Amino acid sequence: MSRHSAITDVETYMQQLGRAARQASVALRRLPTGRKNAALLAMARQVEASRQTLLAANARDLERGRAGGLDAALLDRLALDDRRLDTMIEGLEQVAALPDPVGEIDGLRARPSGIQVGQMRVPLGVIGIIYESRPNVTLEAASLCLKSGNACILRGGSEASESNAAIADCIAAGLAEAGLPEAAVQVVATTDRAAVGRLIAMPEFVDVIIPRGGKSLIERVSREARVPVIKHLDGVCHVYVDATADLDKALAIAVNAKTQRYGTCNTMETLLIDAPVAAELLPRLAEAYAEHGVELRGCERTRAVLTEVTPAEEADWHAEYLAPVLAIRVVEGIDEAIAHIETYGSHHTDAIVSESYSLARRFLAEVDSSSVMVNASTRFADGFEYGLGAEIGISTDKLHARGPVGLEGLTTRKYVVLGDGQIRG
Amino acid sequence: MSRHSAITDVETYMQQLGRAARQASVALRRLPTGRKNAALLAMARQVEASRQTLLAANARDLERGRAGGLDAALLDRLALDDRRLDTMIEGLEQVAALPDPVGEIDGLRARPSGIQVGQMRVPLGVIGIIYESRPNVTLEAASLCLKSGNACILRGGSEASESNAAIADCIAAGLAEAGLPEAAVQVVATTDRAAVGRLIAMPEFVDVIIPRGGKSLIERVSREARVPVIKHLDGVCHVYVDATADLDKALAIAVNAKTQRYGTCNTMETLLIDAPVAAELLPRLAEAYAEHGVELRGCERTRAVLTEVTPAEEADWHAEYLAPVLAIRVVEGIDEAIAHIETYGSHHTDAIVSESYSLARRFLAEVDSSSVMVNASTRFADGFEYGLGAEIGISTDKLHARGPVGLEGLTTRKYVVLGDGQIRG
Repeated sequence: MSRHSAITDVETYMQQLGRAARQASVALRRLPTGRKNAALLAMARQVEASRQTLLAANARDLERGRAGGLDAALLDRLALDDRRLDTMIEGLEQVAALPDPVGEIDGLRARPSGIQVGQMRVPLGVIGIIYESRPNVTLEAASLCLKSGNACILRGGSEASESNAAIADCIAAGLAEAGLPEAAVQVVATTDRAAVGRLIAMPEFVDVIIPRGGKSLIERVSREARVPVIKHLDGVCHVYVDATADLDKALAIAVNAKTQRYGTCNTMETLLIDAPVAAELLPRLAEAYAEHGVELRGCERTRAVLTEVTPAEEADWHAEYLAPVLAIRVVEGIDEAIAHIETYGSHHTDAIVSESYSLARRFLAEVDSSSVMVNASTRFADGFEYGLGAEIGISTDKLHARGPVGLEGLTTRKYVVLGDGQIRG
Repeated sequence: MSRHSAITDVETYMQQLGRAARQASVALRRLPTGRKNAALLAMARQVEASRQTLLAANARDLERGRAGGLDAALLDRLALDDRRLDTMIEGLEQVAALPDPVGEIDGLRARPSGIQVGQMRVPLGVIGIIYESRPNVTLEAASLCLKSGNACILRGGSEASESNAAIADCIAAGLAEAGLPEAAVQVVATTDRAAVGRLIAMPEFVDVIIPRGGKSLIERVSREARVPVIKHLDGVCHVYVDATADLDKALAIAVNAKTQRYGTCNTMETLLIDAPVAAELLPRLAEAYAEHGVELRGCERTRAVLTEVTPAEEADWHAEYLAPVLAIRVVEGIDEAIAHIETYGSHHTDAIVSESYSLARRFLAEVDSSSVMVNASTRFADGFEYGLGAEIGISTDKLHARGPVGLEGLTTRKYVVLGDGQIRG
């Protein structure tokens, strides 16, 4: 009975958040850039002025987390310190400095009827964001949604609830200082899991859901959502070294793509090597990877050169290791490489290393991934490296936004028609 | 038992179609424009050569439909004749003549790291289209999907099954003549309704579903789909005549937007009139609408001027009449007009008639509809009028494609990165 009544309350509560967000979105849509920037900078000042409060709230979350047996990696993601607060403040200032995509009109062209037709970039409306432990996501998500003219409803992890509530206070104070509606950014105040179920099933109030976190969260949200989801699933990224490659570049890219960071989605997980250069390149690679402590798992032809490498099994070609482990396969030319990527890849980021104009052109056209690269490390697949200025995540969807999603991905385009009294004949 | 075994068969059959479509999509992605155009023109020749077969198949559908008690409107949508075949042939030729969006690279810019980053337009992959009686949709959908480099699976209405099978033969012959994979376009050959349930739940094989048809079909597909849906729901369109309007233009636009065609989604359903011009404009409108036999339903203030008009009820402001009926409301200025559109509109197409620069600018920015117009009839909201060359439908979604959807809406953009050996520091 009490369980049932709790769910009823969450439902009412989420409906209230949804209705308020929808109303706020109408006001945000009309807001000039300067007002949005003023709110972002006011939030930055609030965070600066609230350092002690934020760190104290975070300390309570950390203590609860330690008592509850959270592992070290989770505790690290949860933790705030002065350096992380600095980064959060800088993040707000950077988003304030970005160009505002809203209102931009593209391709305004005259038509035979005499009307002019173009497309105007406008906010999506209300964005729901569901995320896990890292409390800085609260501020990051709020700033990107606000700058792109969207209202947002943020639902963080229960382990960060005190930190998120303290950050929510800074956001609310910043909004109030700039005279913006308080429902422009709402942080869900209950840790009841039913709140997520409601948030993803209110198409009347929420236009899109962005889940940020582990695969199980994203799969659950995608499965149950009644509104569109911009999602990020696996990053099984490949580098293919073609026989015409500059092998020094190939070595540098292969090492960087694997070892610069192991836990990121744009890290290479499988290296494909064109047969004619395998004998020359593999020993150099093995030496470089050994220095980084990367474990290699190879196909038969790889093991013919590097005899001590573990045999790769079928599961290795599918694996997103997120660890110092690399699968290596020797292939016969670009067709086999592209077929391997098509079969085993996750359509995230794939690169070719080649000096051949024709093969580079084919790889760019034929590999169906959100980022396709020639002679560059897969680690560049990132909103900042691409010049988006900020990133709410990397989309592995095909529709709407594909690859790193910045402010533009949080907007849509409507048609505008300028006439002079035209009627249709 | 036989029911169960039929479902099992449909499941296997749909899986086969899905797998074949996915394979074909890999080949289509690589296809040069000329090869795609050759197939479209070959299909046109096949239709020309098969006129008698097509009309005979259609006659069998019509006969079955008449025997089954289909209404006149449905029979009309189902019917083919030589003129409709001409239009189908011309449609194929027009799609062949359109520019190919695939491969276009936008915004290739150098980044501080030395890489160049741009976005390349690429096919979505496999598109499932579910539609009702009109058999010409089979060819239209096939041609747009093929030109945009997508494989498609087409599921037409059971009442058109013979016509669709005959059209499918023309498509297959055209594909074969041009040397394209036969699974580039597949027409579902069973009328079992379970086929739709499968088609919308194979994310591994189908990238997007486009339902074309009545609201109940679209709602069912949206509710049950496990893949993204590009959908078209209501068109409750408004024209707002502001007090600064040129009343001759206002009269012409208001009459055209309502009466040029009644059954289309971009037809005006509610007319909003700024109070200061109501007394002058309403009698002129009443006279014009009377000539067209349009029934008016008005608010109290409308009825103060036009005393014989039926009172509008709350339901009238929500209504998509698709008929010679119009709701009229007198409002106090643009704020009340925009608020009315926000409350009752369907975010499809809305127009202001005004000579005020500031009000026109506000209306364009603040009305959240897929098409927003100044001094033009809502009837212009159409892929052909907008210069898209062809249209698969009008999207009332916010994500991906909003408003008329042409070839571009059937594609997505992936990031391309051109480097020279760059690694991330």
